[in-house]
Amino acid sequence: MLVPELASAPNWLPIHITIDGTPLKMITKTTDNMLPPAGILFGYERTLHLDTGILERSVLFRAASGNVVRIAFQRFASLHDVHVLCQRVTITAIDGDPQIQVKAFLDGNSLNITADHWRVEQAEVLATDEEIGISAATRQSGYTLGMAARLSSPYPITSSKHGLRPQFETSFTLPFQQAASFDKITAIYTSRDTDGSPLAAARAKARQAMAEGFDQLAERHIAEWDKYWDTADIQIVGDDACQLATRFTTYHVLIAAPRHDKNVSIPAKTLSGFGYKGHVFWDTELFTLPPMTLTQPEIARNLLLYRYHRLPGARHKAAANGYEGAMFPWESTDTGEETTPQWSDVQPDGSRIRIWTGDHEQHISTDIAYAVHQFWRWTGDHAFMAQYGAEIILDTAKFWGSRAEPKGDRYEISQQIGPDEYHENIDNSVFVNRMVVWHLETALQTLEWLQANAPADAARLTAALDLTPTRLDHWRDVIQRMFIPFDSEKQIHVQFPGFFEMEYIPTEKYQPRITSVQAILGHYRTIQTQVIKQADVVMLMALLGKTIGTPDGSNVEQVMQNNWDTYFPRCDHGSSLSPAMHAWVAARMGMTATAYDQFDHAAHIDLMDNKGNVRDGIHAAACGGVWQALVFGFGGLHFDESGEPALAPKLPDHWRSLSFTVNYRGEKRRFTAEHPR
Amino acid sequence: MLVPELASAPNWLPIHITIDGTPLKMITKTTDNMLPPAGILFGYERTLHLDTGILERSVLFRAASGNVVRIAFQRFASLHDVHVLCQRVTITAIDGDPQIQVKAFLDGNSLNITADHWRVEQAEVLATDEEIGISAATRQSGYTLGMAARLSSPYPITSSKHGLRPQFETSFTLPFQQAASFDKITAIYTSRDTDGSPLAAARAKARQAMAEGFDQLAERHIAEWDKYWDTADIQIVGDDACQLATRFTTYHVLIAAPRHDKNVSIPAKTLSGFGYKGHVFWDTELFTLPPMTLTQPEIARNLLLYRYHRLPGARHKAAANGYEGAMFPWESTDTGEETTPQWSDVQPDGSRIRIWTGDHEQHISTDIAYAVHQFWRWTGDHAFMAQYGAEIILDTAKFWGSRAEPKGDRYEISQQIGPDEYHENIDNSVFVNRMVVWHLETALQTLEWLQANAPADAARLTAALDLTPTRLDHWRDVIQRMFIPFDSEKQIHVQFPGFFEMEYIPTEKYQPRITSVQAILGHYRTIQTQVIKQADVVMLMALLGKTIGTPDGSNVEQVMQNNWDTYFPRCDHGSSLSPAMHAWVAARMGMTATAYDQFDHAAHIDLMDNKGNVRDGIHAAACGGVWQALVFGFGGLHFDESGEPALAPKLPDHWRSLSFTVNYRGEKRRFTAEHPR
Repeated sequence: MLVPELASAPNWLPIHITIDGTPLKMITKTTDNMLPPAGILFGYERTLHLDTGILERSVLFRAASGNVVRIAFQRFASLHDVHVLCQRVTITAIDGDPQIQVKAFLDGNSLNITADHWRVEQAEVLATDEEIGISAATRQSGYTLGMAARLSSPYPITSSKHGLRPQFETSFTLPFQQAASFDKITAIYTSRDTDGSPLAAARAKARQAMAEGFDQLAERHIAEWDKYWDTADIQIVGDDACQLATRFTTYHVLIAAPRHDKNVSIPAKTLSGFGYKGHVFWDTELFTLPPMTLTQPEIARNLLLYRYHRLPGARHKAAANGYEGAMFPWESTDTGEETTPQWSDVQPDGSRIRIWTGDHEQHISTDIAYAVHQFWRWTGDHAFMAQYGAEIILDTAKFWGSRAEPKGDRYEISQQIGPDEYHENIDNSVFVNRMVVWHLETALQTLEWLQANAPADAARLTAALDLTPTRLDHWRDVIQRMFIPFDSEKQIHVQFPGFFEMEYIPTEKYQPRITSVQAILGHYRTIQTQVIKQADVVMLMALLGKTIGTPDGSNVEQVMQNNWDTYFPRCDHGSSLSPAMHAWVAARMGMTATAYDQFDHAAHIDLMDNKGNVRDGIHAAACGGVWQALVFGFGGLHFDESGEPALAPKLPDHWRSLSFTVNYRGEKRRFTAEHPR
Repeated sequence: MLVPELASAPNWLPIHITIDGTPLKMITKTTDNMLPPAGILFGYERTLHLDTGILERSVLFRAASGNVVRIAFQRFASLHDVHVLCQRVTITAIDGDPQIQVKAFLDGNSLNITADHWRVEQAEVLATDEEIGISAATRQSGYTLGMAARLSSPYPITSSKHGLRPQFETSFTLPFQQAASFDKITAIYTSRDTDGSPLAAARAKARQAMAEGFDQLAERHIAEWDKYWDTADIQIVGDDACQLATRFTTYHVLIAAPRHDKNVSIPAKTLSGFGYKGHVFWDTELFTLPPMTLTQPEIARNLLLYRYHRLPGARHKAAANGYEGAMFPWESTDTGEETTPQWSDVQPDGSRIRIWTGDHEQHISTDIAYAVHQFWRWTGDHAFMAQYGAEIILDTAKFWGSRAEPKGDRYEISQQIGPDEYHENIDNSVFVNRMVVWHLETALQTLEWLQANAPADAARLTAALDLTPTRLDHWRDVIQRMFIPFDSEKQIHVQFPGFFEMEYIPTEKYQPRITSVQAILGHYRTIQTQVIKQADVVMLMALLGKTIGTPDGSNVEQVMQNNWDTYFPRCDHGSSLSPAMHAWVAARMGMTATAYDQFDHAAHIDLMDNKGNVRDGIHAAACGGVWQALVFGFGGLHFDESGEPALAPKLPDHWRSLSFTVNYRGEKRRFTAEHPR
């Protein structure tokens, strides 16, 4: 049994070109005279158009024969029709009359790094010289996939099959100064998209798409991107670098999001890499989902339905652990079962480390409830709340009702992992306990709202989830008597009792580093220090703002400043999720210079490879965090006293303005934040 | 006999550190578990402070023992006292109580890539545990150099000698959380700086500098940089990237310029690399010198004196070629003799290519005259003109008087290479012929000015250079009847007769490339096409503006536009000198978008490695060209009708303003260019 992971599909991309027998290779060095006569690459350009989602590459290449060609590639995965993948190659004879050979194929040999997930059932020419295709099934889950491709060419095409590679081929002499273009159109369907044969669906789509042609497909694709940017673009005037980085993160949030499927979510590394095996974490609900909720609510709805459809798995996890209700897995995949590995990969010293997050990082259930509530608050999608959302909020509340431990005159929650994962299996994380209170309060309000506005759903859920008056009273009791660790002398929230008894490590002395403090001190020492992996109490302040409260209800603003002063210097930012949350909170609190430092770092995590691991994939949560830091932090978007969305701008000094659009209850609202005059 | 080149001095930098026996290496990879237990580099930062000329590096490093240290390095070559070089190392014990060993030495083994220029006479401990030094002489030119270093340390130091490496050493245990700082102060003198022993001078300076201490030395150094930026800084509001790039180029122009020596100039790659062997080209007078003339006139004066002192070499070259007067070498070094190599390095096919620039790129003499005249015009340094400048202008004019060839009713100049070096040994380069006319006109005006304002110098030079009335009449005749190639039908200046009969190559098709078209087509084919290496007619337009003129004196603006439309599409920008000149001219002509494209490219040639060869050194001419594109191009600085400096701004759309300071006749003038309202 393999750990579920993203399975890399059969490769739709290959187009191999030779010029006078010299294969085009993009790695040839012009200065390397030691190589046998081969091609020379005079130049290479690659441009990802964030505005249109089109990737362009271009090379100027001299074959061993001396002839020179320019080859330009364009490609896109259609945003208009998710089943359609388009490539265009344009070859121009710059010098001489080269003999060109183009081979365009589909490759069924594509493998993940560690496993071969596909059983290829068919990989062949489907219509002589016109259509090639592949049909394959995943070995473990049994999904089938069909892929069909067509090639348009000004020269005659032949087709053939080479192992798992069905292939088109064309050869011709290209006259001096002339150009030739080839369009490869590939269609892809899986058994999740159609009740019939995925290959048949892909064949029909490929035929239809080729009839429409590359230019028309591109036009529709671009029109769809225009629609996206119309709502999604955030404009920062006065900071070109952060403007670009923000568009880059916004782009990646969108292309990671499922537009057509209610049974998938956004993996921690999106679809761009194998890091975390494509598993879904809280990263989705608290980081990448909010921008979707506020700008693309229909996609946000899909993402929440992914969780809704996995309630059975969550109920199974709760029951297996001896609790009631629904307890979502820390790492979620297709099945809805817990898929967190129990042991780490082998460490340099040969040992493995026990991974406790699947057991004890239980706040995921509340994070999902938070996202459901936020979605409802912004979209006003009452039908969603009544039909799906309330069930998530209530059944996870039921879990917490059974999870809270009565200890003397209060409730406690032991053996938890908060956002600060350096401290495992601790008792009474202030983040967890306070969020559970929020969760139970929200559950009670949700039920009241249902009773008033959707009584049939209220009755259905009351019965199905056994929401007896006794249970609701118990929730009220937990809310009332939950232990919220607080130091009255220092006037701070205590991350968890015992935290300040551990060794103090001044993290600012561990500079410069791109590694985490954990990598420096080692796992077992780190967990015995006050070094915090990422925003924890600060994250709680981001989520709850001033409603975080204090024991006697007074002094909240000072306590929040005290919290910041205490926890910010102890934070390692060992997670890419951390800087954007700090930026958000610092901006809200008016510390705009500090906020900007954190923001600038977060916004460039992938573009600058700030964490040194961009090869594993895009940091989806950081991308979503950047959006929130801008909109909720610097823009200060909030609901004012009348319940209407409003700004409270706190811009960095050098920004002239910050503009964005959010979708509030079906209406587009445009906001521009500026410095007070 | 070696070709003269920059000789890399004995190395003053080495400071080697070991922690618990593990040597600090900055290339260790944290992920490479296959290495035997060694250090791990957790992070590395390097910052060049353009505002203070201080380089800082910092690392966080774990020794094989497990102890962690932070090591911070600072260094600068004093701008206040050119003989003083300062380094500070600060080591902090972050984890554990490491045993540290520091070795600081001078290294007499430093070699150029291809030659060992130094005969080390002495490399030893000069004062036990207090002072080490090296004395060496260049093998070919016989200059001697003395270098002395001292080390301050909180722990006892011992000194020793290891071959050509005199060395300080100290070992100590660094307690947890404590820091230790070491200052290495090195002084350097050559036989060009002192009549006595360079080593004795260096020893005295090192002793004195160490007594002052690093902090005080840094303070004076920074104060000197402040003075520089006070006049040199160009501010671009609305374009952070170009702002940074401009400061980077401005920084490099300054550190390349001789502040203390009238017998050296700025090499094509400054002092930052071995490219072009440190030789001096027209790059100095027409590219890097103008910013010095307008902001640091005393340095510009040094640069012109370098040429003045090499008039004997220029006279020797003229005589050897059968001409009168002074003919400066295309590549100049210490001696003033022509040092252009006659043959290229071996090409990939085993052949060598004849290099003709030393023979035929004769416009260098006029370029120098242009720089002298520009210096005089801006500084009003009449004493310089009378004593030195006029002699350069007049004796090079004398060369051209003897060089112009009477052919029928006109003068021609055959066998030339203009700025477009792809076309060698051509007849009647419009750049050369037109600039010679400017040169002879300027020479006559200079002599008139001398006669009116410095009659003794006029008499001295008239006698010494044999400036007879007959000779002056001949100059007037050459001015009158010089052949200026012009196509009356197309209304363009013709780069040289025959240019448009050659093969037309559409350079825009040769994209993308980082290589030159010459590298693609090969040398012998390129010279038979209309591909232009770099701004040539466009360069003439940069230098002369509307005074470029037309045969009948009319239609100049249209002709300039025609010239641009003709030559810009044919330009390969095969030289880094080209884009900035195009930016300058395009800006003056109001084509601000095209100007910005060219400017942006020029400004980032080194920061982005746009030419792919930054390893060979900084592109000094591009740096100076960027300054001119900003000040003369976008700013439009010129002399108005009353002879006063004035702006004619043509800013790119997205720039809000452009500000700079120039020194006009001893007065600082601050200019701000903005869009017209």
